[in-house]
Amino acid sequence: MPAPLMSDRDLEFMLYELFDTEALTQRAQYADHNRETFDATLGTAKTVAEKVLLPFRQKADNEQPTFDGEKVHMIPDIKVGVDAIIESGLATPTASYETGGMQLPYIVANAATSYLVAAGGVATGYTGLTTANANLIEAHGNQEQIEKWVHPMRSGRFAGTMAMTEPGAGSGLADLTTTAVKQADGSFRVSGSKIFISGGDHELNENIVHLVLARVKGAPKGVKGISLFIVPKFLVNDDGSVGERNEVALAGLFHKMGGRAQTSTALSFGEQDGAVGYLVGEENKGLMYMFHMMNEARIMVGSSAAVTGVAGYQYSLDYAKERPQGRLLSEKDPHAPPVNIIEHPDIRRMLLAQKAYAEGALALCLYGSYLVDDEKTAATEEERQAAHTLLDFLTPIIKTWPSEYGPKANYFAIQVLGGHGYINEHPVEMFYRDNRLNPIHEGTTGIQSMDLLGRKVPMNGFAGYTACLNEIEKTIALAASRDNLSAYATQLADAVTLLKSTTEAVLGATQSQNIDAVFSNSVQYLEMFGHVVIAWLWLKQACVADLALEQQPHEADEQFYRGKLQAMQYFFRIELPEIRHWAKIIGEVDTTSYDMQAAWF
Amino acid sequence: MPAPLMSDRDLEFMLYELFDTEALTQRAQYADHNRETFDATLGTAKTVAEKVLLPFRQKADNEQPTFDGEKVHMIPDIKVGVDAIIESGLATPTASYETGGMQLPYIVANAATSYLVAAGGVATGYTGLTTANANLIEAHGNQEQIEKWVHPMRSGRFAGTMAMTEPGAGSGLADLTTTAVKQADGSFRVSGSKIFISGGDHELNENIVHLVLARVKGAPKGVKGISLFIVPKFLVNDDGSVGERNEVALAGLFHKMGGRAQTSTALSFGEQDGAVGYLVGEENKGLMYMFHMMNEARIMVGSSAAVTGVAGYQYSLDYAKERPQGRLLSEKDPHAPPVNIIEHPDIRRMLLAQKAYAEGALALCLYGSYLVDDEKTAATEEERQAAHTLLDFLTPIIKTWPSEYGPKANYFAIQVLGGHGYINEHPVEMFYRDNRLNPIHEGTTGIQSMDLLGRKVPMNGFAGYTACLNEIEKTIALAASRDNLSAYATQLADAVTLLKSTTEAVLGATQSQNIDAVFSNSVQYLEMFGHVVIAWLWLKQACVADLALEQQPHEADEQFYRGKLQAMQYFFRIELPEIRHWAKIIGEVDTTSYDMQAAWF
Repeated sequence: MPAPLMSDRDLEFMLYELFDTEALTQRAQYADHNRETFDATLGTAKTVAEKVLLPFRQKADNEQPTFDGEKVHMIPDIKVGVDAIIESGLATPTASYETGGMQLPYIVANAATSYLVAAGGVATGYTGLTTANANLIEAHGNQEQIEKWVHPMRSGRFAGTMAMTEPGAGSGLADLTTTAVKQADGSFRVSGSKIFISGGDHELNENIVHLVLARVKGAPKGVKGISLFIVPKFLVNDDGSVGERNEVALAGLFHKMGGRAQTSTALSFGEQDGAVGYLVGEENKGLMYMFHMMNEARIMVGSSAAVTGVAGYQYSLDYAKERPQGRLLSEKDPHAPPVNIIEHPDIRRMLLAQKAYAEGALALCLYGSYLVDDEKTAATEEERQAAHTLLDFLTPIIKTWPSEYGPKANYFAIQVLGGHGYINEHPVEMFYRDNRLNPIHEGTTGIQSMDLLGRKVPMNGFAGYTACLNEIEKTIALAASRDNLSAYATQLADAVTLLKSTTEAVLGATQSQNIDAVFSNSVQYLEMFGHVVIAWLWLKQACVADLALEQQPHEADEQFYRGKLQAMQYFFRIELPEIRHWAKIIGEVDTTSYDMQAAWF
Repeated sequence: MPAPLMSDRDLEFMLYELFDTEALTQRAQYADHNRETFDATLGTAKTVAEKVLLPFRQKADNEQPTFDGEKVHMIPDIKVGVDAIIESGLATPTASYETGGMQLPYIVANAATSYLVAAGGVATGYTGLTTANANLIEAHGNQEQIEKWVHPMRSGRFAGTMAMTEPGAGSGLADLTTTAVKQADGSFRVSGSKIFISGGDHELNENIVHLVLARVKGAPKGVKGISLFIVPKFLVNDDGSVGERNEVALAGLFHKMGGRAQTSTALSFGEQDGAVGYLVGEENKGLMYMFHMMNEARIMVGSSAAVTGVAGYQYSLDYAKERPQGRLLSEKDPHAPPVNIIEHPDIRRMLLAQKAYAEGALALCLYGSYLVDDEKTAATEEERQAAHTLLDFLTPIIKTWPSEYGPKANYFAIQVLGGHGYINEHPVEMFYRDNRLNPIHEGTTGIQSMDLLGRKVPMNGFAGYTACLNEIEKTIALAASRDNLSAYATQLADAVTLLKSTTEAVLGATQSQNIDAVFSNSVQYLEMFGHVVIAWLWLKQACVADLALEQQPHEADEQFYRGKLQAMQYFFRIELPEIRHWAKIIGEVDTTSYDMQAAWF
């Protein structure tokens, strides 16, 4: 039997014990749903993952797509996988009934998707981008665009991409040079080069809808002169049928370390007359629209990193339970039979670290998903706004902490398997490779850290920052009232105090010191804040577990809850104390990196 | 122009300013040598690396060897590379003139090899194993064996491997089951399966000499019943010509995440009558012989990890100097041109971290190499014994610290390049994959940590431990006398004090507490000790740099020395303080991992 992709029990815990997902069924949007339909969705996802996606996970990694100069070729299994996801409704689970969706809460959709991602992430890479593209046009496009582009994407006829990065600009969107020239009929002609466009060309769908950031001729320089365009691979006739080829050419495929089955492309737009493009919303607001979508994209990146961490944990755990090797140091008899490696303390340490990282990260991503639900469907405008504020604040952490600690978990998964972890007979080395992209795409760790410290913390009179700390305080108060947890409550309260004083110190320093120097430790600040947030979510889990243990649960549940308490303890004893050192670097504005001159390297 | 593989200036610094390599020319063994011959060796290695190896580095990674059921096929470039290394004398630089070597000091050989490893490590993977095998037979075999097997390996006719690991045993050598049955003629018949045998089959040489650990029928159980055998792929006639095929069959190739051009094989010995094998030395002493060779093998693993770290640092540094993107936060004019990314503080942080990790690790490995020279050629038996004691003590650190921090350096190299770091148009993602094996092979990090804490620290009345701390004290005393360094001297002295008290506490705990619990933090202990040792080597480098700066060097040298001081500062401010937290975990015997029960995961 293969190792479980995800822990069913843990997802149940997170959805129904840690976060009150059933309460969402009280909302009009989700009125048709109940726990049974939620569970059925997870069950469907698990089945698709195990029966359709898992069987070709390794093959998709081994046999990358190729480009013969005209078309992209990939193993046919991928289309089977993409179609299975679309047919099961899992490509657009949160979309409204009208657009063919299941109108499920975001948290349930995200939990269900975790099975698909754990089974390789190949097919969801294609469907997820399409959904993000469709969401963006639905939010900012006009009715004609929704009918022409969104509906075929929802039904699976068309695919979608996001075309932002350019060879000369990378993360520096202000410098992008793709241009758009307005035509008499109101359409545009778009010309320029884009790179690293995931799913930028393939034959999985009838058409590909590129959302392209470009500069209308004469627009202001910098980020304020960027507009958003729909540029399809094939033009579409008025009856919705696919027409002639647009000027969108595949210039080449990149060969990535991981996520190999998803094409990463260099695209050339409008090499002759310009590719036909259609403006989304208003001119020069493209980046704002794109960022609107980016919050959800960033949660998806964080989730993918967390889930890949969980998948590696589950796999190495399964291996450790069944692989006999060596003896404990305490074993005096050299002829005693070998023990399963899970008995070795260092193996337990590496499994526990994975559990603490991966399940902590997953809890954060599901919490963020719940905030998306609240942002969209909470009862009052005030509640929706509060959820938006908190989510907006947490987004750089949701994107980054799992992206940095997911790969660390995968590092340990390999180490648990030893030499077997380094070869492709086991998937943990693939997880390690796949996960390495997450600290880079959708905004690198460095960029997220500047977003957090420079924008999100002070924004709107520290509204998001304050809201986040308030949530943490609530859990501290609850834990403080429980005998088994009060010491951890005190530790987290101390950590929050330190976080506050560090925040004051670093922001104060921006008044008197060079801002580049002050921000040279912004990554440590993000890591520190992330550790406090993850510690909070572990204490929140511990509160649930500790209460549940009082009810004398049956044995399997008792063991599950004890594992939660132990992972919390691991995070508090081994991980959380690290913030003291980081706080000093940040708060005292250590300028070691800033002072290093280019010529000294 | 491609990025430099290594920093020539830094190798010069390490060989002639940090360590007194020229002093070695006073020894009889190296009497023919001088700085010019040393530099010529490095120059040869650099040329072979740049002209022969580098051109096929990527190709060798992309096109793995295949097995058609009869033979192994690989790109022909690899044989060209192996032959170039052999012809230039770089396969056996330390071997005596009589056996065809250049009789060079180990530290010079290791520095020269760094260029070859940075150019891909493919060819040195084959030649390095052959040399290790030849060294072992030379040390423990008889004269006939040396003539029959060692000479053809030294000349490049034969290749060599180490066949230890078995499918059922992995790191648990006590449980290996390969058997050897003595024949009337004194030879043996060997039967069993081995896995992960690097270079276990190929067509690069006329013959492959496997050194196989096996159990003579009737031998004691456990590690005390293991013997070492020469088992060649082809039998060899009395005239030295290659004879008929021995019963050594390739069962299959493994597909590794990195180091892909080197075959990793499953070998089947003696499927019918038993493979012909020849006992090395005495029965049941095989593991002792193998461990004799393991010290050098472990230095090679550490060096390889360090060099791969340096190579990624050099590459990402070169990229950062030439890649314009974005603006500094302090830039008020949004229309200012983009800066090269090396100007961004977070990029500098990631480059400085790489420099601190990789050059710190390299200094440690070259120090270890110098100890090998002292162990072999120091003037008195007392000095040789002292070097042996110190080297034996440091070996788990030399093997492990670079293996753990080399990949961390490569992580940052990828991050500096962003999306470009994730694709195979640049080598940093390959470095990241290649380097991931180093914490696993030749004894995992977990095993090294138990060796350090359980064996090496208390061994011979703490002789190695004391010798190591004495060396550190010398540097502290020197640094304390220099105005620019005295604060760092104090910090390192405090770290040593903490290391001593932590060592006492943890060893004391073994008297009263369960040994498995006490050792559950042995990896942190190794990491702590490693950090103190690397801090020491950075302070040692800083002493040289600080003194050199007093001499008003020309500008390029001034910048080089300032970079050394800044990297030292980085290690002391950002890295070294981490040990306080680890010391607490170790000294107080945190049992979080130990207490975690298998059923709770």
